[in-house]
Amino acid sequence: MDFAYSPKVEELREKLAEFVQNRVLPAERIAAQQLASKPDFWGAPPIMADLKAAAKRQGLWNLFLPEDGGAGLTNLEYAPLAELTGWSPQLAPEALNCNAPDTGNMELLARYGTADQKQQWLAPLLEGEIRSCFSMTEPDVASSDASNVRLDIAEDGDDWVLTGRKWWTTAALREDNRVAMVMGVTDPDAPAGSRHSIVLVPTDTPGVTIERSTTVLGFDDRHEGGHGEIVYDRVRVPKANLLGPRGKGFAVAQARLGPGRIHHCMRLIGMAERAIALMTERARTRVAFGRPLADEGVVQATIADARIKVDAARLMVLRAAWRMDVEGPKQARHHIAAAKVLVPSTAKWIIDEAMQIFGGAGLSEDTPLAMLYSQARFLQIADGPDQVHRRSLARAEFAATPAIREIRG
Amino acid sequence: MDFAYSPKVEELREKLAEFVQNRVLPAERIAAQQLASKPDFWGAPPIMADLKAAAKRQGLWNLFLPEDGGAGLTNLEYAPLAELTGWSPQLAPEALNCNAPDTGNMELLARYGTADQKQQWLAPLLEGEIRSCFSMTEPDVASSDASNVRLDIAEDGDDWVLTGRKWWTTAALREDNRVAMVMGVTDPDAPAGSRHSIVLVPTDTPGVTIERSTTVLGFDDRHEGGHGEIVYDRVRVPKANLLGPRGKGFAVAQARLGPGRIHHCMRLIGMAERAIALMTERARTRVAFGRPLADEGVVQATIADARIKVDAARLMVLRAAWRMDVEGPKQARHHIAAAKVLVPSTAKWIIDEAMQIFGGAGLSEDTPLAMLYSQARFLQIADGPDQVHRRSLARAEFAATPAIREIRG
Amino acid sequence: MDFAYSPKVEELREKLAEFVQNRVLPAERIAAQQLASKPDFWGAPPIMADLKAAAKRQGLWNLFLPEDGGAGLTNLEYAPLAELTGWSPQLAPEALNCNAPDTGNMELLARYGTADQKQQWLAPLLEGEIRSCFSMTEPDVASSDASNVRLDIAEDGDDWVLTGRKWWTTAALREDNRVAMVMGVTDPDAPAGSRHSIVLVPTDTPGVTIERSTTVLGFDDRHEGGHGEIVYDRVRVPKANLLGPRGKGFAVAQARLGPGRIHHCMRLIGMAERAIALMTERARTRVAFGRPLADEGVVQATIADARIKVDAARLMVLRAAWRMDVEGPKQARHHIAAAKVLVPSTAKWIIDEAMQIFGGAGLSEDTPLAMLYSQARFLQIADGPDQVHRRSLARAEFAATPAIREIRG
Amino acid sequence: MDFAYSPKVEELREKLAEFVQNRVLPAERIAAQQLASKPDFWGAPPIMADLKAAAKRQGLWNLFLPEDGGAGLTNLEYAPLAELTGWSPQLAPEALNCNAPDTGNMELLARYGTADQKQQWLAPLLEGEIRSCFSMTEPDVASSDASNVRLDIAEDGDDWVLTGRKWWTTAALREDNRVAMVMGVTDPDAPAGSRHSIVLVPTDTPGVTIERSTTVLGFDDRHEGGHGEIVYDRVRVPKANLLGPRGKGFAVAQARLGPGRIHHCMRLIGMAERAIALMTERARTRVAFGRPLADEGVVQATIADARIKVDAARLMVLRAAWRMDVEGPKQARHHIAAAKVLVPSTAKWIIDEAMQIFGGAGLSEDTPLAMLYSQARFLQIADGPDQVHRRSLARAEFAATPAIREIRG
Repeated sequence: MDFAYSPKVEELREKLAEFVQNRVLPAERIAAQQLASKPDFWGAPPIMADLKAAAKRQGLWNLFLPEDGGAGLTNLEYAPLAELTGWSPQLAPEALNCNAPDTGNMELLARYGTADQKQQWLAPLLEGEIRSCFSMTEPDVASSDASNVRLDIAEDGDDWVLTGRKWWTTAALREDNRVAMVMGVTDPDAPAGSRHSIVLVPTDTPGVTIERSTTVLGFDDRHEGGHGEIVYDRVRVPKANLLGPRGKGFAVAQARLGPGRIHHCMRLIGMAERAIALMTERARTRVAFGRPLADEGVVQATIADARIKVDAARLMVLRAAWRMDVEGPKQARHHIAAAKVLVPSTAKWIIDEAMQIFGGAGLSEDTPLAMLYSQARFLQIADGPDQVHRRSLARAEFAATPAIREIRG
Repeated sequence: MDFAYSPKVEELREKLAEFVQNRVLPAERIAAQQLASKPDFWGAPPIMADLKAAAKRQGLWNLFLPEDGGAGLTNLEYAPLAELTGWSPQLAPEALNCNAPDTGNMELLARYGTADQKQQWLAPLLEGEIRSCFSMTEPDVASSDASNVRLDIAEDGDDWVLTGRKWWTTAALREDNRVAMVMGVTDPDAPAGSRHSIVLVPTDTPGVTIERSTTVLGFDDRHEGGHGEIVYDRVRVPKANLLGPRGKGFAVAQARLGPGRIHHCMRLIGMAERAIALMTERARTRVAFGRPLADEGVVQATIADARIKVDAARLMVLRAAWRMDVEGPKQARHHIAAAKVLVPSTAKWIIDEAMQIFGGAGLSEDTPLAMLYSQARFLQIADGPDQVHRRSLARAEFAATPAIREIRG
Repeated sequence: MDFAYSPKVEELREKLAEFVQNRVLPAERIAAQQLASKPDFWGAPPIMADLKAAAKRQGLWNLFLPEDGGAGLTNLEYAPLAELTGWSPQLAPEALNCNAPDTGNMELLARYGTADQKQQWLAPLLEGEIRSCFSMTEPDVASSDASNVRLDIAEDGDDWVLTGRKWWTTAALREDNRVAMVMGVTDPDAPAGSRHSIVLVPTDTPGVTIERSTTVLGFDDRHEGGHGEIVYDRVRVPKANLLGPRGKGFAVAQARLGPGRIHHCMRLIGMAERAIALMTERARTRVAFGRPLADEGVVQATIADARIKVDAARLMVLRAAWRMDVEGPKQARHHIAAAKVLVPSTAKWIIDEAMQIFGGAGLSEDTPLAMLYSQARFLQIADGPDQVHRRSLARAEFAATPAIREIRG
Repeated sequence: MDFAYSPKVEELREKLAEFVQNRVLPAERIAAQQLASKPDFWGAPPIMADLKAAAKRQGLWNLFLPEDGGAGLTNLEYAPLAELTGWSPQLAPEALNCNAPDTGNMELLARYGTADQKQQWLAPLLEGEIRSCFSMTEPDVASSDASNVRLDIAEDGDDWVLTGRKWWTTAALREDNRVAMVMGVTDPDAPAGSRHSIVLVPTDTPGVTIERSTTVLGFDDRHEGGHGEIVYDRVRVPKANLLGPRGKGFAVAQARLGPGRIHHCMRLIGMAERAIALMTERARTRVAFGRPLADEGVVQATIADARIKVDAARLMVLRAAWRMDVEGPKQARHHIAAAKVLVPSTAKWIIDEAMQIFGGAGLSEDTPLAMLYSQARFLQIADGPDQVHRRSLARAEFAATPAIREIRG
């Protein structure tokens, strides 16, 4: 047992922290101004191209990817780097080509893609030239129960024909989004667990209509490319667009979800850290009733609790990352679930307290806190609501022999 | 002691509930569509005029005002009616001419206004023909400590000349906003408590510049008329525009704040009730893992706790309203403070849980939950943050003889 | 709607507060000393007789009983008086002959008892000459589900013969305990709801063995007469000892539970008030780091929150009492359930915070806090655990039309 | 970074878990029976001697001590072993000679003791032949502020003469307790931080009177040897009994407190684990309303949250232990403080929830839960209340440069 990052990770953290602090944070205001005056609503702010170029130059590109083309980091090594990108979740992940949902999509392509699929989609994604989205959630069914996915993927000669409606397809509206990975039913009569498949759908295929982007707590999430509600109306793609084995859509998606949840959690840790940095600075400098807020016992208690909570949450994520590396995502699933339950609620609490210490400014666009809060709130629902994860954690307890020798370390 | 509403209140509640349910709730979608296609960003949706006309016809107009021109209700009588308007906070209060900040402003004019001021401003406000705003909070100082207000109001011949910057001036941007009540320093050398005054400033006076509207958790609060950041640059108004006694600005404002806090709290109770109604309905109809959410123990516990919390919070508000009626706002200030601390956090909790039960839809514009949440979050900061109210409550405890005979009922 | 106690109640509160403060609180230390040196472990401390005599003289006797022989108070009138007895839960309720479980037992006898039963048991109970207990909970089954009660009550000629095991029979060990009301199965083949009956069993009947008294968080609850685990081994009593209709044991017990829960809740409010009084006094007088604890923001926030929580909880109990008076216990059951969920957890929180402010003294016998905490903890389980009450509250929500017109006041 | 225990630790854990499960847990009931019938109230139950002999035989003795005579384990290595002893806090730590306060006292003697002191006290302590106590807290002053310690230690010829009153001297009443380490003022006129010293006082020295043992939530803590309130009335000991440098009592005690807090925290983790094991087993086997409690969503959520919380808390303790090993207690003080705030409240929550799932049995002596709860409650106050630790954590945040590069890993 050892709680120190490796020298390799420390070196990358040093470099990345410097990049985030000196390049990304100052770019936030510029990006906001660029977007405010931009004619194409869903394009990236021009400064993003500069950030991406700088990240590439500095070897801070595709850090997320363990496979070829990426940095070859383990989950445990990548986690503290993902955390640093969470300080500026609208800019930093994309600047490093480490933003969801592209990361998960690239992992799927790297692992399950055919040579053609890799050439057509993975290569430009790894270069940051295009974007992609993952179309899974449907508006009419409870997505906490994934088996509810109903979009129809029918065979017709050499093609798949997709018919159905999806929403919360994050990044769908980005102007450089080129491809959707769409989950649907290819084999309705197969046994449960073998009915769904994933198909690659170029976004300019006839029949694909993005009806709108849903908001999150009032935010349009332009940076992320919104959250598309998409109608797939008899959308026809070649059979070669099947991604991974037919009927194994959930198994394929699962491979994507474990690391994805951990990445989300690590970014949330970074968001919480930024909230702590902001409220600490505010407390030091804001005077009320004749003394700085930092002298108030309640403010001190809040900041101390924030420190305790975020440190505990980080350790839980790192442990899950470590276990994924050592035993694989399946064995690590309960540690991932624990992190997924703990981290968003922790980040919510911290960011909300920071807003309170800031007063009105904390709710407005004058601080990033409200945006950070909406991210944390969103991630409490995305990737499975808490209740589903809690149930599986409880079942693991019930399944264990309740003996002292069995207790986890 | 009696927990039943009076027959008079029950009758008004019946009528108002019918109005909100059958007129206001169906108007929400229409209003959203009208705003979406409206050229003037800060105007009311056209359907508002219909709602106002209907409310007037049905005797549901100016219910808030105990004085002449209002309904003559006590705070205790008005409270459950304000609650009902909280079900649709963007439409219902304004439809009844009972929306903040106009209500508080009308109360000030009714109580402190000269005959001329009443004719010029109170009369059209009571008719719902114009809007008004209250300009108190300043960006550079901690507004938890009200004595920090710095805007300069200098005498110059027969005029006042105002110079300073305000923000969070709610409703400032409404196109029919005509007048700002501005708090500032008229007597910098007077003893504390006698330095500030309130001056009426027509919004078209030269030197008044609304620089922007601040957002709340990503919401622009168009319905409310935004929250203006306003520069007052040597704004000149006649001395007759002084509202209330010179140097007594805080005492005057205080008269406004007690009932105002209670009105806010009652509307929040209504918002929480709407969240409960929404999540209850969702739980009854949404099926996951083969059974309705309503059969899940965790969902049941959440809804039960929501019921318990909102009922307790409502009683605390009603008690404060009753005490204001019986002993006056000053004697009721601790009961008001207790309600002010309890209600926003209660509403936040309930609405957040409702969002969780709805999943993605709960965060988006497809339900009113995200908007309701932003209202509750805002009101936890507005009118004094929790910490200030807690301190005064604690001091009241310390000041009491700690004897059993002194305990409150 | 009116939040003032009636003049009649105010007068009784005044008298009772004086009694508790000047007679009961000073008796606590004396009673502890008397018990410490008492040869008979389960007898009352001698000072109790003095307190009872004084209460009788002052007209503070049997306040709980609405029927003949009692004070004729409504639940709403009695509630604030029960609260005052909660300041000293080990002495004050018994001093007034208002202690559980005798109060509930007397109510049952008053309502369902035959003339003989009344003469034999009710009369001496009303005089405070004997004690009684109620034997319902069984060790081997989940008592959250009352239908689990299994003790066998067989007919044998003119007798009932009881066989089974009970525990948590509070007051069973009191040396002046003379009678147990025992719930058991008389009609195993009847429809559910008609199987159980209640039988009066003199505690000296052969076959009644009290095996032990269970502790609560380390407390032996001597004052209360402990919590007996009792074996009923072929205990024979005459058929005339049936209390209430045969097969209607639960309906009879239910009549006892509604007011009983409210009495418990009101006493808990008093316990929480005593904790607030204690911690307030401590905060005023204890100096750490150069200033009184009362100057610490965290202490202030704690005391303010305690005030808010206890006031809200009290209002919920009073509302339930009022509704019982106006519409009966059945109609009031959801208000009772809400109070039952809210009050013990509120009291726990407040008392725990008071312990923290006191430090070590708060945990020890030097303050009543630890004992008060154990009372609150016990009452969170007694009379139905939270989860059962939450479920019934949720079902009430699901059953309501989710329309604004239906919302409760 | 690595979350696996070393093979050496795994081997010890295996052996110790087997010992706790098969030797200690079955001994709990026997020990309780032995104590119930024991004439000398404050002696160990006879079975303790068997347990100690067995532990010695198996190499499970003095695991806590890094110095000569101990197991030579680091804090990080010892932590998971201390955790296992927390499953049975009244027996296991003493069986291994790893119980507070002896562990801390042995560490002080090992580090600061003279050869004579070591021979006289350390040797028999290491053998488990005698017990010791640490007399620091005083009843009349706030012990959250350690500089308040007032007991007078005057020089008189070759002797120290001690006069003062202490309480919460844990283990003072154990019949085999032979020595108290007493903190007091030797140099009242020295600068703050140089006034206090620690003196070894044999408990049979004239003038030492143990007036009573204070209880904790109704528990007498017999196993631990109670918590003595001790009068030191002109107690005379030779100057050679000074432990550590004169005037450096706090610095010496501090060396004891860091590891001590971590040991306490680790045992609390074990207590929480036992509560989880108990409630999980209960949920699997207890049937209510026709199905096992384990099928209830609320029970599942509780158990899942318990798992998440205890795992997060454990990681925080392990991290603090690791940092103590790597950088020393002073550098690790904020990590220790964080663990000290987090762990007792976490354990309290988990144990309280377990009690609720058990119902009445959970509050009584039929499960260890109530005793475990009292341990957790005690440790939230012992070794510094939360508020003091929170303040120092907040100050560390304020002192840090709020830059991303500074954030902790």
